[in-house]
Amino acid sequence: MTTIAIDAMGGDHGPRAILPGLEMLLGERSDLKFLLYGDRETVEAAIADLPRLKAASTIHHTEVAVAMDEKPSQALRSGRYKSSMWQAIESTKTRESDVAVSAGNTGALMAMATFCLRTMANIDRPAIGAIWPTVKGEAIVLDVGATIGADAVQLVDFAILGAAMARALFGKECPTVGLLNVGTEDIKGQEEVKEAGRILRERRMPTLNYRGFVEGTDIGQGVTDVVVSEGFAGNIALKTAEGTAKQLGGYLREAMQSSLMSRVGYLFARDAFRQLRERMDPARANGGVFLGLNGLVVKSHGGADAQAFSAAVSLAVDLAKGDLQHRIRDDLDKFHADRIPAPVSDEDTDSDAADGFVRGDSAKTGQSGQKE
Amino acid sequence: MTTIAIDAMGGDHGPRAILPGLEMLLGERSDLKFLLYGDRETVEAAIADLPRLKAASTIHHTEVAVAMDEKPSQALRSGRYKSSMWQAIESTKTRESDVAVSAGNTGALMAMATFCLRTMANIDRPAIGAIWPTVKGEAIVLDVGATIGADAVQLVDFAILGAAMARALFGKECPTVGLLNVGTEDIKGQEEVKEAGRILRERRMPTLNYRGFVEGTDIGQGVTDVVVSEGFAGNIALKTAEGTAKQLGGYLREAMQSSLMSRVGYLFARDAFRQLRERMDPARANGGVFLGLNGLVVKSHGGADAQAFSAAVSLAVDLAKGDLQHRIRDDLDKFHADRIPAPVSDEDTDSDAADGFVRGDSAKTGQSGQKE
Repeated sequence: MTTIAIDAMGGDHGPRAILPGLEMLLGERSDLKFLLYGDRETVEAAIADLPRLKAASTIHHTEVAVAMDEKPSQALRSGRYKSSMWQAIESTKTRESDVAVSAGNTGALMAMATFCLRTMANIDRPAIGAIWPTVKGEAIVLDVGATIGADAVQLVDFAILGAAMARALFGKECPTVGLLNVGTEDIKGQEEVKEAGRILRERRMPTLNYRGFVEGTDIGQGVTDVVVSEGFAGNIALKTAEGTAKQLGGYLREAMQSSLMSRVGYLFARDAFRQLRERMDPARANGGVFLGLNGLVVKSHGGADAQAFSAAVSLAVDLAKGDLQHRIRDDLDKFHADRIPAPVSDEDTDSDAADGFVRGDSAKTGQSGQKE
Repeated sequence: MTTIAIDAMGGDHGPRAILPGLEMLLGERSDLKFLLYGDRETVEAAIADLPRLKAASTIHHTEVAVAMDEKPSQALRSGRYKSSMWQAIESTKTRESDVAVSAGNTGALMAMATFCLRTMANIDRPAIGAIWPTVKGEAIVLDVGATIGADAVQLVDFAILGAAMARALFGKECPTVGLLNVGTEDIKGQEEVKEAGRILRERRMPTLNYRGFVEGTDIGQGVTDVVVSEGFAGNIALKTAEGTAKQLGGYLREAMQSSLMSRVGYLFARDAFRQLRERMDPARANGGVFLGLNGLVVKSHGGADAQAFSAAVSLAVDLAKGDLQHRIRDDLDKFHADRIPAPVSDEDTDSDAADGFVRGDSAKTGQSGQKE
């Protein structure tokens, strides 16, 4: 049985998209239990005609819903402890749930998750891993926007996090890993990337197969199972690919409507176009995975409809069943065993990620900064 | 009359692709004169059955051809002064030509161009500008890989360079400019990008209309005429878009061949698919423009066929006719008029770009580092 905590108030469409998404998933997968965090009245109204979900859920009333446009620091002030987002995250810490899913605002979710769960021992910064459809299947690209910039050791940590995610999802015991760069020769690129390449080459970790630098063109060709980047370039790569897919999809629609002949052709090839649409559909790969925290959190696109939200939750279930967190902990322990541990302080454990997430905030709570 | 210097030995296919590309262009455009730099025997053999080109060209024999896999520092040592690449570049400095075009290796071309032409007064670093097809037409994205990293003032310089290129090519007197970032809110992103945004907002330059931050998804939607980034993220964005287009083109081909019905549909819609292929064709937008140097150099894809090379030369002609260099000089002078000029030294004028381009090399030549 997998227990999934749901921030029922997150996303552009709220419970009206989220709950039907869960109902859909229950039609496909069994052994799921949901903890729904949100305004009881709203959730009960939306769940009334979803019999499968009603039977598989417990509703936990929360007073506060984080707005989609709230700044992370503001969301932390108003929603810490009492928002649906916070409580869904916290349930993974208390082991009431195996994984939390939210379609709420990314900055607020990352700030709350980092604050509530803390980074794992030996991890400076969390990363967001995305599933990237390739011509060979799927790849994992990280970091797609948790933080900006990364030093060499942080990039190596990202490689370990991404490889553990690939093992949990793709069932490959030693996934291939590439570092995103502007050329494939060893002499090219950012210093941090070159240094990370040197460490990965020399350490020869048993849980990943380092294949060198990869370029933007290589991601979609599935050259490696995992592509590692700091969050600025990773985010720009992801969004550029989304934009290009949207642009070309538009060209295709225009072309098919451009003449009587093309419209007739479209009718003949309708099934092929349906398959094509499915392969190009970003909802298939919905879900950013927060990696490196002491709890598993998956972020759905804010604009996700029921189908897309269901895909994000399905991913969350796969990760929980694949025992992602234990794999990561084991791999990190092995890699960092011979490094001198960094001193632990409250500041170290905060994400310096997110837009406006105020580092100093942590001091006000009186929480200890002990890592697990 | 526009005079174009051609590195006839560059690219994967050499004169056999380059010269037929020029012949094609002469079928479409008049008032062109070519200076062909390369091995005389090879060029004369390849030009024998190209009558229009023969009539419009002068062949300049060169002893050395830069290899596609040569490191920039190595190319400078072996090819300085005497290679086809160097001499094509140098002809723009001596005003024998208006613009130089090469399909040779990017790192070597950037190193030679920077070394031979030097950066313009007030410009620290050159940038490579690319034409990006959008749903509204075309945009200019820079830097797509001349250097890695950029400070705020360098990003502002890139904005000025890109806007001048947009004015020369698109005929818009005040093109819109966006800074590539991971979010559109002012609080997000790299410090350099935020600071560049502040300068652009406050200075309100008459030659560009600054529109704030743009994301990867916005580039192909044509949200702004010019998109500015440092070269690492810009290169990754460009190559990711190319990779995504290739991937989706492959999906489309597979879908159209997946059944008898889809193949029939394809036959009906053949014309529409031809149009689509043309819109998706990367050769349409072939040509990286080196900006910020005292001479105009255009880089064609190394793998370009005749058609694609012809597109790069056509772009070069448009830029020369659009008087790009004077526009840039005027705009830079206006912007930098109230800034204290930086001290000029040999080191400052080298590109710290390129893969292995050895800064120290410049000292060995005894050339002065005076900017124009």
